[in-house]
This record gives sequence, structure tokens and C-alpha cells, in this order.
Amino acid sequence: MTTRSEHDLLGDRDVPADAYWGVHTLRAIENFPITGQTIAGYANLIAALAAIKQAAALSNRELGLLDAPRADAIVAACEEIRAGKLHEQFVVDVIQGGAGTSTNMNANEVIANRALELMGHAKGEYRHLHPNEHVNLCQSTNDVYPTSLRLATYWGVQQLLAAMAELRESFAAKAEEFGDVLKMGRTQLQDAVPMTLGQEFQTYAVMLGEDEQRLQEASRLMLEINLGATAIGTGICAHPEYVPLVCRQLSALTGLELITSPNLIEATQDCGAFVQLSGVLKRVAVKLSKTCNDLRLLSSGPRAGLGEINLPARQAGSSIMPGKVNPVIPEVVTQVAYEVIGNDLTVTMAAEAGQLQLNAFEPVIAYSLFRSVNHLTQACRTLSDNCVKGITANRDFLRSQVENSIGLVTALNPYIGYAAATEVAAEAHASGGGVYDIVLKRGLMSRDQLDAVLNPAALTQPRWVTL
Amino acid sequence: MTTRSEHDLLGDRDVPADAYWGVHTLRAIENFPITGQTIAGYANLIAALAAIKQAAALSNRELGLLDAPRADAIVAACEEIRAGKLHEQFVVDVIQGGAGTSTNMNANEVIANRALELMGHAKGEYRHLHPNEHVNLCQSTNDVYPTSLRLATYWGVQQLLAAMAELRESFAAKAEEFGDVLKMGRTQLQDAVPMTLGQEFQTYAVMLGEDEQRLQEASRLMLEINLGATAIGTGICAHPEYVPLVCRQLSALTGLELITSPNLIEATQDCGAFVQLSGVLKRVAVKLSKTCNDLRLLSSGPRAGLGEINLPARQAGSSIMPGKVNPVIPEVVTQVAYEVIGNDLTVTMAAEAGQLQLNAFEPVIAYSLFRSVNHLTQACRTLSDNCVKGITANRDFLRSQVENSIGLVTALNPYIGYAAATEVAAEAHASGGGVYDIVLKRGLMSRDQLDAVLNPAALTQPRWVTL
Amino acid sequence: MTTRSEHDLLGDRDVPADAYWGVHTLRAIENFPITGQTIAGYANLIAALAAIKQAAALSNRELGLLDAPRADAIVAACEEIRAGKLHEQFVVDVIQGGAGTSTNMNANEVIANRALELMGHAKGEYRHLHPNEHVNLCQSTNDVYPTSLRLATYWGVQQLLAAMAELRESFAAKAEEFGDVLKMGRTQLQDAVPMTLGQEFQTYAVMLGEDEQRLQEASRLMLEINLGATAIGTGICAHPEYVPLVCRQLSALTGLELITSPNLIEATQDCGAFVQLSGVLKRVAVKLSKTCNDLRLLSSGPRAGLGEINLPARQAGSSIMPGKVNPVIPEVVTQVAYEVIGNDLTVTMAAEAGQLQLNAFEPVIAYSLFRSVNHLTQACRTLSDNCVKGITANRDFLRSQVENSIGLVTALNPYIGYAAATEVAAEAHASGGGVYDIVLKRGLMSRDQLDAVLNPAALTQPRWVTL
Amino acid sequence: MTTRSEHDLLGDRDVPADAYWGVHTLRAIENFPITGQTIAGYANLIAALAAIKQAAALSNRELGLLDAPRADAIVAACEEIRAGKLHEQFVVDVIQGGAGTSTNMNANEVIANRALELMGHAKGEYRHLHPNEHVNLCQSTNDVYPTSLRLATYWGVQQLLAAMAELRESFAAKAEEFGDVLKMGRTQLQDAVPMTLGQEFQTYAVMLGEDEQRLQEASRLMLEINLGATAIGTGICAHPEYVPLVCRQLSALTGLELITSPNLIEATQDCGAFVQLSGVLKRVAVKLSKTCNDLRLLSSGPRAGLGEINLPARQAGSSIMPGKVNPVIPEVVTQVAYEVIGNDLTVTMAAEAGQLQLNAFEPVIAYSLFRSVNHLTQACRTLSDNCVKGITANRDFLRSQVENSIGLVTALNPYIGYAAATEVAAEAHASGGGVYDIVLKRGLMSRDQLDAVLNPAALTQPRWVTL
Repeated sequence: MTTRSEHDLLGDRDVPADAYWGVHTLRAIENFPITGQTIAGYANLIAALAAIKQAAALSNRELGLLDAPRADAIVAACEEIRAGKLHEQFVVDVIQGGAGTSTNMNANEVIANRALELMGHAKGEYRHLHPNEHVNLCQSTNDVYPTSLRLATYWGVQQLLAAMAELRESFAAKAEEFGDVLKMGRTQLQDAVPMTLGQEFQTYAVMLGEDEQRLQEASRLMLEINLGATAIGTGICAHPEYVPLVCRQLSALTGLELITSPNLIEATQDCGAFVQLSGVLKRVAVKLSKTCNDLRLLSSGPRAGLGEINLPARQAGSSIMPGKVNPVIPEVVTQVAYEVIGNDLTVTMAAEAGQLQLNAFEPVIAYSLFRSVNHLTQACRTLSDNCVKGITANRDFLRSQVENSIGLVTALNPYIGYAAATEVAAEAHASGGGVYDIVLKRGLMSRDQLDAVLNPAALTQPRWVTL
Repeated sequence: MTTRSEHDLLGDRDVPADAYWGVHTLRAIENFPITGQTIAGYANLIAALAAIKQAAALSNRELGLLDAPRADAIVAACEEIRAGKLHEQFVVDVIQGGAGTSTNMNANEVIANRALELMGHAKGEYRHLHPNEHVNLCQSTNDVYPTSLRLATYWGVQQLLAAMAELRESFAAKAEEFGDVLKMGRTQLQDAVPMTLGQEFQTYAVMLGEDEQRLQEASRLMLEINLGATAIGTGICAHPEYVPLVCRQLSALTGLELITSPNLIEATQDCGAFVQLSGVLKRVAVKLSKTCNDLRLLSSGPRAGLGEINLPARQAGSSIMPGKVNPVIPEVVTQVAYEVIGNDLTVTMAAEAGQLQLNAFEPVIAYSLFRSVNHLTQACRTLSDNCVKGITANRDFLRSQVENSIGLVTALNPYIGYAAATEVAAEAHASGGGVYDIVLKRGLMSRDQLDAVLNPAALTQPRWVTL
Repeated sequence: MTTRSEHDLLGDRDVPADAYWGVHTLRAIENFPITGQTIAGYANLIAALAAIKQAAALSNRELGLLDAPRADAIVAACEEIRAGKLHEQFVVDVIQGGAGTSTNMNANEVIANRALELMGHAKGEYRHLHPNEHVNLCQSTNDVYPTSLRLATYWGVQQLLAAMAELRESFAAKAEEFGDVLKMGRTQLQDAVPMTLGQEFQTYAVMLGEDEQRLQEASRLMLEINLGATAIGTGICAHPEYVPLVCRQLSALTGLELITSPNLIEATQDCGAFVQLSGVLKRVAVKLSKTCNDLRLLSSGPRAGLGEINLPARQAGSSIMPGKVNPVIPEVVTQVAYEVIGNDLTVTMAAEAGQLQLNAFEPVIAYSLFRSVNHLTQACRTLSDNCVKGITANRDFLRSQVENSIGLVTALNPYIGYAAATEVAAEAHASGGGVYDIVLKRGLMSRDQLDAVLNPAALTQPRWVTL
Repeated sequence: MTTRSEHDLLGDRDVPADAYWGVHTLRAIENFPITGQTIAGYANLIAALAAIKQAAALSNRELGLLDAPRADAIVAACEEIRAGKLHEQFVVDVIQGGAGTSTNMNANEVIANRALELMGHAKGEYRHLHPNEHVNLCQSTNDVYPTSLRLATYWGVQQLLAAMAELRESFAAKAEEFGDVLKMGRTQLQDAVPMTLGQEFQTYAVMLGEDEQRLQEASRLMLEINLGATAIGTGICAHPEYVPLVCRQLSALTGLELITSPNLIEATQDCGAFVQLSGVLKRVAVKLSKTCNDLRLLSSGPRAGLGEINLPARQAGSSIMPGKVNPVIPEVVTQVAYEVIGNDLTVTMAAEAGQLQLNAFEPVIAYSLFRSVNHLTQACRTLSDNCVKGITANRDFLRSQVENSIGLVTALNPYIGYAAATEVAAEAHASGGGVYDIVLKRGLMSRDQLDAVLNPAALTQPRWVTL
């Protein structure tokens, strides 16, 4: 393998001649052989890093700190990366020590070497354009890295929100379709009182809608950045006009309404916004899992289960049981939910362990948040497309359960009282008989009165029947 | 013991004659001997239950569903409870099965029996005023219980917010006091660049301020209630005009701007708001713990530690080591933080386990949230009063560390470049020498230039020194 | 209030004249007003502290470090406490800073003052017998506190194991009772193949049995103590013969086979055994919750659920729905399980946060472990007594579900092949017909052959029918 | 793309002609596009699946259920896979619905198609050898999948144990090297009493040794398998002699001492062993993180930290601060620990959510366990090789801290009493003076006596100096 020699604090090392990354990246590869997953797998992160470096170069040129040829070369290299090129050069492990320094160094080196090429120099000729002195000018890992995580997370959350909206609409469409399907509602898995299947599905849509709102709110916290904070937030080595300028440039490049944190020292060490967002992702996971558990329960059977709805068959369910079909899509979504809840704990512990002016554990926060966001997005999509859209209802069976239900007696409370109703229920339970018959037999209400009280509209919406 | 006999679905049982609670409560005592902690320990919850029952009675009277004598007696009983009386009659265990039914029944029974007394009847004479038919009129556990949890949580959070504000002010006062104390900032526990101790303490104040904002937002979700939902949210047995009326009555009684959930079926089964709030409490815990870990680190010593600040001595630190003083207040706060993070997991699992139209596990959500809120409140108070207010700084030592620091070299980056600065740092590290001397010796900068760049104001605020 | 004056490192303070605790305890009360729950609530802990102090006094007398009158008075005071007296004098909050120092000091003070009384002196006359110099002789909080937690936990776990054994026997008795009840087994909530209800209940007994084994193993780790380690494990201030002697004395007093850790420095800082035990308690919680979820599922109904078994009615299930009965006992057990899982997280975080020679967060580990052990014990008891023992089966309904099941077709695999069996299942699903009829109609097997393959014994035990 | 047509329950589908996988795998690819990580990334899992299929084929041939040509072809295909071939054909996502059915089906199809080739047939000609009827004979996903997870996990844990042993030896070697380095021990970050740096490092070795023991114990639970349980544990479709036979065959193939669960119904639904193992992995993570936090603390500086030890420099620490070196290896290990603790929560929730006769969420358990085991292995290796082995001590500085310490006074307790010692400590603290001088000045002990008590051997091992 052809190599070139590079130098750092610790000495000289050979790196592959065609690598855009350099000695700092090489050391990180050796130090962090942890997951085998490189940051190249997170396109949003690479795009964010390139946008930040581009905004910094533009700002530094404007401030007279960087000459035009170097600035232009850096900008051009960043544009290429933002267009999807050179991502395979981002080779450091996503879990890394050093508080993200290796990710930042990897970016500095790739951009410097690509810029050198664009300027007509060979890779590694850093005297013409240096990864630290030029690409990283007015920057520190301590502001670049968290800012890149915020942008990448924000973009990821927008994709998740789109998937959630799609899923919400699938539920809402089913809610409309099932609007007239009467069924028994349940509390604590015990028969309660009637409702419609449409009301049940509408609930899932409403829950998702609320989660979308909470997630939107939390994602806006990602738009507050600390560029210009440099090492610990005091802005050492950064031009005082750099802070507002780089925020404007980055906003323009990304189309996002970014703002600079009012206290950069606090912003540089604080992971609160990540904890908040992760907590909301956990909330989304909790609700999605609850919804999928319901779908599995309602579709249990076909003959010895609740048998209320049918999920679309997606694959043979068993290697041994012929004809068995399983609720595989809700099952995979619930598993993603459990992963997200586990990831939230990782984020929590990493945030809590921050010390003094920096949190050294942001890489594992990123690793956890990125997976949570991506997997939830995929989970919502497969749930919408491969499950919810194809659900059908067993209408006749559902209606017969309402008619046969003891729970109907609750509706008679206002007319015959809780005590008398309890006795009717007890007799129904003991004898297996129906509420209608027992009430008539006991002379508590007339058939007309029962018809008036027990019609579907009265049962499923707050209504007061005057007899 | 004198007793009276009461009757329920399962038969007759004797209860103590002087008990305001009745047969339903008795069965709950027998079924749930779990923690030994009764709901009486949560005054906010009892007050919330009484306010709800009072609002319901007022509404029912207005709707003509409850006659004036009964309504007035119920209102009077509720007023007494809200004034702090009869709390010891709330004897069911805070962790209970039945989705809160036992808590609701306990309230119904206590209020009914007190109201009976006020009406001149004996306890237990439910034919005059019945716990279910009158006190619980137009209500179900499924709307009363979650609403009571929301009110109790809201009130608790307001107390927590007050304690957090007090703590924030203590940090801010110290930040001002330490505004001119120069010290070394650290990243990853390694010497980084200078800052002031005031900046460090200001960070803690800012973090708390942000947490207060997030907590305020989350607590507002508690103001959305589902009264009138009754059993599963369809409002069965409730008068259609009851929903807006009871919300108005309860708002008036509590002074809170309550709103009714737009979708009562969703609201009745959804624990999302509790998950959200618990997630934010977890965030508060994470930050508080991080802050306390910093305080312990900065005050480590007295001779073999960082020794930057001194926490007030609060108690002898050791049963064996004479004169030892420990950071006991930050230690207790961190432990509360770990408890809160554990509680958040309990809340998460309980919320995820909800099925169909109800979450049966709200009691353990309540138990967890209440403890988190209360313990955090106490932790903030003891941290403010018994620790932060008495912190002092070792000013001379801190300044000497800055002057002796290799990290100063970072400030020279813009003038001598990253590469030359790295060499200065390496020599300083190897020789034990000072940055000042080495830069002068190497002829990189003049003494005047160094003085200009390395003065405290330039080091601790973004400034660009033109030499 | 009459008071006496006491003195410590920080100065003089008045304590109530009749209090057995002293100035150190007073300061702890002021510093840690967190939960309101004092250590007096944990009788096992108080008994453990007294046993340790007694063993130390006996050892010190034997080594000639403590004279007989003082030693005898200390022993007598400890005996009283172990007999249940003076527990109300243990007034420090269970969550406390100081790594347990306040708990140890509280014990030293109560024992010293009671011993002083027994010697004919007034409380507080420490020149005759001093809490630190005599009661705490050869000891440090750093060995006394973790040892007391281990003993208390060990005793608590034995109580839990007894409750688990009782519950296991209840399940086993039901397994025998239901040994001949044929029913459909389910995987992924979908009908699978037949089994007996006895097999289903036997599973719960077996699971508990395995958990008991794991818990026994983990609890034995509690028997390794670090008495004699004193401050950091180097044994400073302790007589070299004290270590084996105090272990023997404490073993004799408690009847436990205690051993001294081979490396006292490691033992003094390590919380691994607590993490291990908490992890096993979490495992127990997971299984108990799974079991209770199954019970709730199998008893769902009465008419719109699985309706396989009936849990004993324990209380009226609803304040609004007459006659409703809920699975309140399994519900409370599942909630305890979620609490235990949350507690495990608290233990985990507290253990991880230990630094250098000591873990300062053991009090919250104790708080969490004690509650987990106690609440699980109570949960097992109520589950056994108030639920499992009274479960009944709906035998006819269960058998009809097997006869009506498509899942029967799996048993035909070896005879007609997976492909043909899949076609039979598909026809049954589409037509609503029975497997028996379809197989006969298609001429795949004879009636005699079907009878041979589909009899209960063949279905529920591995058997190979030769046709 | 050339394709072949395959058929399943849901109809016909084209799969790539050169794919060894078939229609069932195709549907899984479409249904579960979650993580993008296929099971091919887990070589231990693929090897385990092949070993199981091979053992089953050998058993079925011996029982006369499978003819020799087919059995031999299956065995040959499995041998190839176990030798590392065809792994890229295992293309289903590691997180999947269906309780592992897709993984099992993927294996059945790849083995069937490779066996068909070996028999001279084209891929897809399943009439000659069928994935379900022959490769899966006497098996179900419900026994194959958990057994494969157990084997894969067991093998992974052995690799982890080797890495832990290596790390333990690195710590032990340092303990020996530092055996004579006197330093101050600390409790609660406050100066306590002297110890040696060797004692401190020995602690890390001992902790790891204990963790290895616990992990060995837990991994042995993986050797209990449920092959022959088939669908729900009743062994339906399996020959009664198959159960012991396949266990013997698989033991012989793998060299492991496997045993069959005594209760196959319990074993099929129970995830207790995974929860137990995950809990122990969490324990390992807690300890590793604690150890790494200590290393970071002890090496903090270089000038404003504790500065006791030096970690080897592994990479430039900052993109902006010249010469800064960070503890990047301990940082990455701590992050892995947080990931493992998060994974444990995922395992816990997935295990708790199992219902009735099967846990549908085992795939996410596998995903979590595999990552925990693999990442911990890598973390131990980089910690040993890239950090611990190169640690050096600042001996002179450490000794001076002991000599200068107030904590020395503790050693005087037995000679001058706790009260007098407290006064010495207070004076030392106030005046900045040394214990030696103050004791002499106060005439409490002679210089010879002090020399005898305060020599290193007496300070760091339990010793009783008679003066």
C-alpha cells in the first residue's frame, strides 16, 4: 500500500496515500475499534459537519482571517460532501473517546485534503492548507461536535415526524372506516361499556398527533447552537464578530432558524436538550408500543382469541405450524420501542456523567439518539404500510358481543340506580342470561325505555336520555 | 371494637364504627398490604380528590341531578378535607390494584360518611346519601383518579419550581461573588483554558433556569383533565352538560386554568403527559446530579484534591477519621437524582403496559411521580440552604494555577499558530516550565504582547487582541 | 423541652434530654429532610447494626481493648435493641449523604447512651463511655455500614424466599388440579397447539423455583463482610487479630456463616454484590409481572375476553360499572415489579458513581434494595393468598376451543406433510370449518388415524403415533 | 435480474436466482427494514444455527425420519456454513417480528438450497429437499431460535472472559509495579488515610476477577437448551427419542456440555437466563465504568488536577488546545458501559412483555445481548492494550502528599484518642501545619512513637503498634 507520512503531537505515522483522512483519524481507528460502525453510516451527521465547516470558512473569509483561495477550496470541498460525496472517508467509530474530537478531526482532515486537491496540491501538503489552522479556524470540537449533533438530530427528527404523520393518517382513515362498528370497550382487560371501533382507532391517531407536537417542541431545542464557544465556551481564539456571523451563515446554508445560546459556557457543557429530546422519543416509543400491543390483542385468535380485527398476513408465521399467521409488524415495532427506551437510559447516564466544562460522553449520546430516531422512523413506516392500512374488522362478531354484554347495565345506572344495577349484573353473570331480559323480568324498565337508553348513539357519546 | 356492617358486591363486612371509610376501603386494605404508606401521606392528592368531588356535587346540583341538602353536605365535607381534616381516613396503600378504584372509593366513603354526619345521620346510613350514587355521581374512577393525580402533581411541581428558583438564586449570588476569581477551566478533567469561578457558578444558575422552563411547560400538560369521561371516555352515565360545567367549577375552586381534553376516550387511557413530566423530572435530576458532582470535585481535598472551593462543614464526616468533613449535601442530592431516574423508569414501564381503554397501573405512576417531585423539592432546598449559600473560594490558589498553566498556550494560537503552540506546550510539559518563559525564550512573542493576550478579560471573554 | 448539650467538630448543640441519640444525629436530621422515612422503618437494619456493635464489643473485650464494665454495658444495650427496643431512636432519614456515617453515628449514640444508663450514668456523660471511642472501637462507617446492609438484606431475602416458595406451591397445587384440563396453547397471542392448563400453571411454579435458586445464590454474596477494614480497607486503627475475631463473634450472634472478604480494600469500595442481587430481584420482578399479565389475560372477560380462568373476586371493580370485577391482585403485583425494576436502575447508577476508595451512595442503594425486597415479599403473599389459591377453570369452554381449533393441524404434519397441512389450515380459516372434517373430506387420513393422533395424551406430550 | 419463483402461504414470489435464501426470507426483508444490520454480522449466531440444523439432521437420520442422501447433504451444507461460508446469505434484519421465525426460515432456506446443489439439484427444487419438511424436521422456531441465541451468547461470553482476564492481568502487573508507592486514599473525594498505589490497582484486578466468576456462572445457564420442545414445549411433531439424541449430537458437534431443560414448556417461554446474563453484563459495565472514572480522576491535570498517574498519550486531545492529551480510552470504555446498561433495560422490557407460551421479543434481546458482549470485549481489549499497560506513577508527588496530610492523624486514634486527634486535625486545617509538628508541640507523643506509628507498613496494613 502506498502511503504518505503525517505528523502529530505523538510523532510520525504513515497513512494510506489515497486516504482523505490523516494521522488523527488513523489514531482514532486504532484507539476505538468498538462497534465496527463508522460515522459514515449517519449521512445527516456528515452533512452537518460539512455545513458547519463551510459556514466557518465563509465567516472567516468575511472577517479577513482566511484568504479567499483557501476559503473557496474549503467551501467547495464542503459542498461536495454535502452533495453526498466522500462520506466513505468518515471512518472513525461512532462510539469514541475524546468527546468527539476524532469526528471533528476526521472532518477537518477530509476537507483539508479534498481542498488541497482542488487547489492543485497533493494530499497531506498541509503547509498550504492545514486541517487545524484553516479548516478548524475559530472552532473547537467543543462547539463543532455538539452543533453537528444538533443539526443531524433535527434533520432526523423531521424524517421521523413525517413517518409519524403518515401513520397517524393511516389510523385516522381506519377510524373513519370503522366509525359505525359497535364493540365492547374494556378496562383492565375486563368488559366495560360499548364504544365504536372507530373511536378506538381514532385514539391511536390522536395519541400520535400529541406525540408529534411534543417532538416538534423538543426538536426546536436542537436549533440552539454554541458555535463560537470554542474550547470551554469563553470563545478563546475566536473573533468576537465570528459568533453572530457563523450562526447567520449556517442558517443560510441549512435553511434552519438557528440561534446562538445566550450563555456559551453553559451551552458547551450542557446536554439537557439531548436528554429532553430522548425523553420525548421514549414517550413516542411508549405510545407506539402500547398501540401495537393493543393491535396484537385485538387481533388475537383466530379462534381462541379476542378476534375483533384482522391484521394483514405478511408472512408465514411458523416453521412448524401450518397456516399460522402472526402479528409480525406490531411485534417488530414494540421491539424498536424497547430499544429506544434502552437508548434513553444510555443518554441519561452519559449526560449525568458530564464533568465541569464539558461532557466527554456525547458520542454515545449521538449513537443512541441517531439509532432511536432512525429505527422509530422505519418502524412507523412499516407499521403504516404493512399493517394498519390493511386492517379489517369482524363487524358482526363485535356487535354480537355488545348485545350479549353485561356491561350494558352501566347505562342503566341513572335510571335504576347502582345497587339495582349491581343485582342485575350479578344475576346475568350467574345465569349466563342477558341484561335486557333480566331488567324486563324484574320490571325495572320497559322495553321502549331500554331501547331508548341502549341504542348505539346513546351508548357511545355522552347523552342523557329522558325516559 | 365497635363495628357497623356494610354491604358490597361480595357480601357483608364489619367496619370499625368510627371509621369514615367503609367496606370498599376495607377490602383494599386487605388486598394491598404492600408499602405500608397510605395515600394520606400525599396531602396534595387528598386535597385534589376533595376538590373534584366538590366540583362534581356543585355541577350535579346545578344540573338538577342532586338535591340541595345532599349537595350541600357533600360540599361541606369536601371543604373540611381541603382544609386539612380527615386526611388520616385515607388509608389505602399508595400502590394498589384496580386502577385507582380503591382511592376513589375511599374518598367517596369518607365524604359520604362525613356528609351523613353533617346531615344528622349515622355513618353507614347510605340510604340517605350513597358513596357511589351521590358522591360519585356522573363520575368514574377512570376520570376522577387521573384528574386527581394531575392536580396533585401540578401543585407539587409548583413547590418544586419554587425550590429550584431559590437554588438558582443561590448559585447566581455566588456567581456574582466569584465574578473576578480567575481559574483554570477543564475539559475531560484535563486542564483546558482559563475562565472565572463566577462563570462556572453562573452555568449552574442558567441550567436550573432552563430546567424550570421545561418543567413549567410539562406541568401545564397536567391542566388538561378528563372529568366527564366516566368509564372509558364515552361519558356514559354523565349528563352531556356536565363536562363543561364540572371543568368550570373545578377551575373556580382551585384557581387553575383547567381545560377538558378534546378527545375523552384518548385522554382516559393515555399516560403520555405523565411520561413527559417524568422525563423532564429526570432531566432536572441529571443536571442537579451533574452540578453536585462538580461541587464535590471542586471541593475535593483539603490537601490531596482539587481544593478550589470549600463547602460549608455540616457534620463530622467520619466515625473514625478525626476532623474529616465530607460533602454530605451534594451527596444526598445526587442520591435523590438516582432515585428520580429510577422512578422515571417505573413510570415508563407502567405507561407502556396500558391496555386498550385504560391504564391499570396509574397508582404506581402516582407513587413514583409524587416521590420524585417531593424529594427533588427537599433536595433543592437543602442544597441551597445548607451548601451553596456557604461556599467559599480559594482565590489565591486558583489564580496561581492559571499562571502556572500550560493551557494558556491556547490563547496564543491566533498569534503563533497551532503547530508552534504545540511545541511550546510539549516543552512546558517536559520541563515543568511556564508558557510565558518558553515563549519569550523562543522569541515567539514579546512580553508586552503576552501581557495583552493573557490578561484575564481577554482570556475569559471572546476578544480579539490586535498586537 | 429539657435538653442536654453535646459537642462535636462544629461546636456545641442542645439535644432533647430524653433522646438516646446525640449531636451527630441531630445534624443529620437537619441536613437530610428528604423522604421523611427514618431508618427505624427497617427493623432488619437496626438489628444488624446492634449485632455488629455487640460483636465488636465482645471482640474488643477479648483483645483487651475494652474493659469489662463498658463492654458489658454495650452488649446489654445491643441485646435490648436486637429484642426490638429503642428502634424509634433511629431517626435519621434513610436517604442521607455521608456514605452512611449518620446511620452509624445514630447507632453509636443510642447504644452509648443506653449503655451509660445501664452503667448508672446520665445520657451524654460520654467521658464514661464514648460513642466513637468505645462503641465504634476498631470500626469505621466504611465497614460497619456495608456490613449492616448485607445482613439486613440477607434477612429480608430469606423472608422473600419464603413468600416465593409459598406462591410456588400455590401454583403447583393448581397445576395438579388442572392437570386434565385441555386447552389451546398460544404463541404470539395466536392459537398454536393444544396443551393442558396444568402444564400452563406448572410453568409458573417452575419459573419461581428457578428464581428462588438464583436469589439464593445471590443472597449468599451478602454473607461476605468487610468488618475490620475500617477507613478504606487498610484496617487502620484496628487490632490485627480483630478481623477474624469479629467475624466469628458476629457469625455466632446471628447464626450466619459469615466470611471476611479476602481483599478488604476492594470489599470496602465495591458494590458489585448489591448490583448482582438487585439484578436478580429485577429478574424475579420480570417473571412475576409476566405471570400476572398472563393471569389477567387468561381471565379477561367475562364475555368479551379469553375467559379461560376465573380469578377470585376480591372487591367491587368499579365505582360506576355495577358488577364489574377486576384482576386487582395481579395488577398490584405488576406495579410492584415495575417499582423493583426502577429501583434496580437506582442501584445501578449509585454503584457506577462510586469513586476511588468508597461508594458514597450506598444509602440510596439500601433504600432501593430494602423496598424491592419488602414489596416483593408482600406482593408474593397477596398473590398467593388472595388470588392464585382461588382460581377456577372454565373447563368445558377450554375443551371446546381445542376441538374447534385450526391449530390441531400441526399434529398432522408428520403424517400428511407441511404443505398439505397448510392447505387444510387455509380451508379451515376461509370456511370456518373444522380440521377433522376437512382432512376426512380430502381423504388425507382416516377417522381412526385422526383419533389416534389427536387424542389429548398425544397432543400434550412428545409422542410418536405410528399409524 | 434472473429470478426463480417460490411459493408460500401467501402466494408466489420471485427471488433472485442465485440467492440461497427463498420466499420466507424475501418477505422478512420487506417487513423488517429496521436497522440495516443483518444477522450475518453475528458469526456466532450463524455458526450456532448451522450446528443445530446439523445435529437435527444427524438425529433424524438416526431415528429413521430422514433418509441418508438428504441428511448427508444437509450435514455437508451446515459444515460449510460452520466453516464460514455463505454467511452473506443470512440477510434478515437482526430486529425482526415473528419471534425469530425469519431467522430460522432464512437458515432453513440457505441450508436447503445449498444441500440441493450438493445433491445435484437446482436451487428452489424443494420437492427433493424442503426447508421446512427436511431441514426443519422435528424442530420449531420456538426451540431452534432460543437455542441458537444461547450458543451464540455462550461463545461470545467466552471471548469476553478472555478479554477480561487479559485486562485483569494488566491491572495486576501494575499493582505489583506500584506496590511500594505510598499515596493518600480517599473517601467521598476527601483525603482519608494512606495506602499504596499498588493496593489501589490491585482492587481493579480483584473486581474484575469477581466479575469473571459471576459471568462464568451466568454463562453456564446458556448451556441449558430446549431442542425438541417444538411449538410450545409439548414436543408436538417431534419423535420422543429425538430430545435426548439431538442434545447429544449438538454437544458432540460443539464440544459444549449441553443439557435439556427439565420442563420444556417453561423453557420455551422463559427468558430468565437472558435477563440474568444481561444483569451480570450490567454489573461488569458498572465496575468497568467505575474503574475508568477512577483512572480519569487520578490522571487529571497535568497541573490543575490530582496528577497522581499518567495515562499513555494516544492521540492529540484537542483540535484547538495545543499539547492537550485526554483520557480517551477510559472515556470510550465508560460509554460502552452506558450502552450496556441501556441494553440491559431493553432486555428487561422485552423479557417482561412475553405472553403465555412464547416471548415474541427475543430478537431484540439477542440484538442487545450480542452488542453488549461484543462491545465489552472490545472495550476491555483497548483498555488493557492502549491504556493500562502504559500507566506510570508520579511517585515523589504522591509521597509528599502523604507526608503533608492531615489524614495521618487517624493513625494516632488508638494512642491519643478521637477527641485529641480531632483537635490536632482542626489545628492543622486552620494553620496549614503538619500533624507531626502539632503532635510534638502539644506533647501528645514523642518523635520515636510517631515514627513507629506512621511508617508505611503500619499505615497500609492492619498492624497494632505497641508503644
